[in-house]
Order: sequence, then structure tokens, then C-alpha cells
Amino acid sequence: MTTRYVIGLDMGGTNIRCAAVSPQGEVLLLRRGPSNADSSAPAVTANIAAQIQALETAARARGFGAPLAIGVAVPGPLDVYRGVVMDAPHVKNWRVFPLRRRLEAQLGRPVVIENDANAWALGEFWRGAARGRKEVVLLTLGTGVGGGLIIGGKLVHGKSGMAGELGHIAVDPEGMPCDCGVRGCLEAYASSSGMARLVALRLGRNADLPDRYLDSGGNFSVRHLTSAARARDAVALKTLATAGHYLGIAIASLVNIFNPELVVLGGGVSGALPFMRATMISAVSERAFSAIGAQARIVRAALGPISGVVGAAHAALYPPRR
Amino acid sequence: MTTRYVIGLDMGGTNIRCAAVSPQGEVLLLRRGPSNADSSAPAVTANIAAQIQALETAARARGFGAPLAIGVAVPGPLDVYRGVVMDAPHVKNWRVFPLRRRLEAQLGRPVVIENDANAWALGEFWRGAARGRKEVVLLTLGTGVGGGLIIGGKLVHGKSGMAGELGHIAVDPEGMPCDCGVRGCLEAYASSSGMARLVALRLGRNADLPDRYLDSGGNFSVRHLTSAARARDAVALKTLATAGHYLGIAIASLVNIFNPELVVLGGGVSGALPFMRATMISAVSERAFSAIGAQARIVRAALGPISGVVGAAHAALYPPRR
Repeated sequence: MTTRYVIGLDMGGTNIRCAAVSPQGEVLLLRRGPSNADSSAPAVTANIAAQIQALETAARARGFGAPLAIGVAVPGPLDVYRGVVMDAPHVKNWRVFPLRRRLEAQLGRPVVIENDANAWALGEFWRGAARGRKEVVLLTLGTGVGGGLIIGGKLVHGKSGMAGELGHIAVDPEGMPCDCGVRGCLEAYASSSGMARLVALRLGRNADLPDRYLDSGGNFSVRHLTSAARARDAVALKTLATAGHYLGIAIASLVNIFNPELVVLGGGVSGALPFMRATMISAVSERAFSAIGAQARIVRAALGPISGVVGAAHAALYPPRR
Repeated sequence: MTTRYVIGLDMGGTNIRCAAVSPQGEVLLLRRGPSNADSSAPAVTANIAAQIQALETAARARGFGAPLAIGVAVPGPLDVYRGVVMDAPHVKNWRVFPLRRRLEAQLGRPVVIENDANAWALGEFWRGAARGRKEVVLLTLGTGVGGGLIIGGKLVHGKSGMAGELGHIAVDPEGMPCDCGVRGCLEAYASSSGMARLVALRLGRNADLPDRYLDSGGNFSVRHLTSAARARDAVALKTLATAGHYLGIAIASLVNIFNPELVVLGGGVSGALPFMRATMISAVSERAFSAIGAQARIVRAALGPISGVVGAAHAALYPPRR
């Protein structure tokens, strides 16, 4: 009997992950490739299709059959029902772009598309920290901040599938500038891009950050900021405490809105949580209604970088319905 | 054939409304009585039971049969599944109070309890502005600010039924004090108690507000503030503009979180919306993702003060399920 599997693809700013996932959510095969996010929309689309075909070829070589379904997770608000990317800030010309139709034309098979943060949340819900839970708020902290909401055991999509932009909850409307163009969103504090600005502000200069906060490519890195915090660097400690404080304010609002049983925190920046936790917990305790806050455990995500492909496969198997 | 009906009761800080509601949501009979919210918990409970019995007597006199079900809406976060009021700030000794069990003991019949703001939202969803909609954010602006969320055509309850504390989303964490004990909740701006503080702050005094903002009992009244705004009173205009600005910030966050098709605004303070609208709309346009914001119409509630009894009847007919 041939192995049954679903293809899940997760496109980030730099890499694409593409996996063969069992109908139970186990990753059977995983490939990585470049996302080429700065090339043209047709080139990015062709690249996605090529990586899906390469995965299929590799699967066939192992004696797998044809995929049961194909799920593709991409950044930006998107209309999941029409399969249209509305506005992906990190991909050129992906404004109101009919990604699903273009991929289906190239692959000759049905495709489901899903927001990358929603796919990440679905992965954690299916196989990770939120497995078996019904009322969950999930936040992924990375270059930006995204998230997903599980209510009644289902991912919330909203009218068109654009729900879950949790990084753009206002936490301090006159505060730090956010990449989205306004001030004081959660993302302006609890993402790596936000933290880079907080560090620069604290040091009083715009461009040259000290090497201790930079990776080998000379770019600001939360991993390096966290190492500096571990070495008791004052700016690093203060920056992470500020990020934790605003993360806690957003969590408190979300707890008061949803009465969740679980809040899951993941993404690359969540490695810095040990240095954000004290201020985060204190803001949650202060601002969430005590009866509601007492029911919401805050935990780390469990799947790591594969949750996106697992969640994309889940979206493909159980497509969003209006 | 006897008339079939459900009893819906809505307890506010001053009045109780109690109605016989048809299984289709029409109000057949409506009675008002005092809520006696400042007496002891057993006395408040006995008063609720007595008003339900009085309604039943009046219904019997008209030839109605026994009620199909009884729904009771009360303030404060409450565990709808266990029927326990967790913390009602406006009723003495209603902390972790088993209201449903006590009412059932006095009435000898099953009772469903629901949060008053959720009941209000259910009323608007069943028979009012959100009728037939599936993705709706509802905010009621009164002495405080409450709300409800309709997702996939159902009211969101969360783990225990305490979801929907939309008045306690942070909109400016270092801002105005809120009755809940922290600073900068939506309620601290868009409620009558918040507006009273904003006016006092603007006038630079604590106690004596000018008569033009007071009702005949000498209490601050948003209706009077609105009249003053209509007469171009600068403090009134500025206060309502500020309230609208923060209401818009909260709506933008909720729109980014939910991608709703509709935002419904009701409650006594919503009469002041003409003077809040410009700043509200400008904050929503600025902060909500354009693709998401474009799908969310903002409308006034349609049922007025009866939405609570209608929603309580809905809760009784379709009790929340885990």
C-alpha cells in the first residue's frame, strides 16, 4: 500500500519549508529552499510550484502515491475563501494577487492557501502545545507578530479569512512606530524589528548598533540580544523587559476578550521569553480580570519551525468553510 | 391553544426588565421593577425570583401557559456553565455566588444565566442590527462598556462563559483610570463613568461639575453632555471627540483580530455617537488593515433597551454548550 500524505508548504521571508505530512499530522519528509521573496510575483509563484513538485518527486522516489491535498501558507492578510493574497508587505506585487488560482494552474491540482501565522497556529493546535484544546490564543513572535485564535475547537477566520492579525492590536497608540505605518501596535514591541528600534532608541543612535546585538551578517538579532541579556547587558535587559510588558498588556486584553484556557507563545523571538517573562506576567496579572486570568495558562509553543508546514497540511485536509 | 413564551430578565444597576418573549424573539409582555442592587445577595436574588413570578402571573392572566424556559441576564464576569456569578462589581456579596442554583431553588424550574452584555449582544444578533450575520463585534456603551462576539453565527463564551469583556481592552495603558482598577481600558473613555472623569480632568476640579452636564438628580449624564455639545460647548465637544478616538482605537484592534462583517454600537452612551463619529472613524481608518477594515460596517444597535430581555430569552432557548 502506498503511503498517504498531504503537502504542506510554509513560505517565510527567506526560506520555504515544504513537507509531506501524514493524515495524522506527522512530518514524513521535509525539504527547504529559498523563498526568493524579493523577485516578481510570477517568479515567487513559480518557485512555490517548483518546490511542491520537487517534494512530490522526492515522495514518489520513496514509493509514496499522489498527495491527498496541498496547503500553502504565505504572509499577509489574505482572503482564504477566494484564495487571494490581499497585501503581503514582504512580497513585491502581491497586492490582491490570486495566488490559489495561479498555483492551481501550474500544478493542475486543487490548492488551499492560508495565512502563515494561522498555519503556525493550526500546527500547534493539531500536533503541538494546544493539542486537544478548544479555546486558545496563539501568538508567534518573529520579524513581525502574528497569531491565530481557536474558538470552540476551530480556527477563527472572520468574514474572509483575514482574522488573527494579533500583532496589530494597539498597546500604546502614541508609542513606538510599527512597520504597518501607525504607532504602538504589539508588533512594534514584541517582534525583532520592534526590538531593534527599541535598542536604537535607548542607545540614542539610528544606524550603528554595537556588535554584541548583531549576527555574523551584521543584522540585529534577538538571539544575540538575548545572549547580551544573559551577560547582564543593561540595554538588552531593559529592552526585553519593555517588550515583555507590552506583550503582557496585549495578552491581558486577549484574555479579557476570549476567556481562553491557554495562551501559546512561539516564533524565534520566544527564545527571549525568560527575559520577558517577569514584566509580561506582571502586566497580565494586573490587567486581566482575575477570574478570567486564573483560567488561562501561558505556555511555549511545542513544534518549533515545522508548525507552519504541519498547519498548512491541516488547512489542506480541512479547508476553511464560510 | 395557549401562547408559547420564554421569560427573559435583564438586571441593570437600577432597573430590572422582565419580559415574555415568543420563541421567535418578539416581546409579548414587558414589566419593569427596581433591581435593588445595593441590598444583600439573597435579597437581590429573591427580588429577581419575585419579578419572574409576577411576570408569570401576568402572563397567566392573559391566558398564556407555563414558560418554555427562563433566562436571566446579570452584570459581571460569570461562569455560564456552572451558573455562578464570579464578580459583579455593582452587587454586594455577588462574588462567586451560585445564582442559578439559588434561583432554581426559589422558582422550582431550570434557569439559564448569562452576562448582561452578552445577552444584549444576543438580542441584537437574534432580532436587531446583527440579524442573520455570522461575524460580528458588538459593543454596548453605558455606565460601563461591555460587549459580545458572534463568530461563525454563535456567541463566543470562552472556557467558562466569561469571554466578551470588551470594555477592558487596553487602549492607552498609562491613560485614564478605569473602575476595574487599572488605567487606560476602553471603558475609561467610552462609558459615562469614564466621560465624567474626562470632563472633571478637563475642568481641573474633582467634584462640582457645571449644571449643564448634570441630570435633575445632580448626576453626570451623557445625555446632558450631548446637549451641551449640540450647543457647541467646548469641553463637551472635546470630551466626546476623545471618547470617539479611543473607541476607534479599540474597534481597529477588534477588526484586526476578527475580520468582522459588522460592528454594532449600542447602549445609552451611543446616543452621543454623532459627536464621537469623526474621531472614531479616523482612528479606525488609520489603524485597521485597509483590506480588513473595508469589510467591517459600523452601525448603531436597533433594539434599544429591550435587547437584553430578548437576548436573555435567546440564551434560555439555546443554552450555551461547552
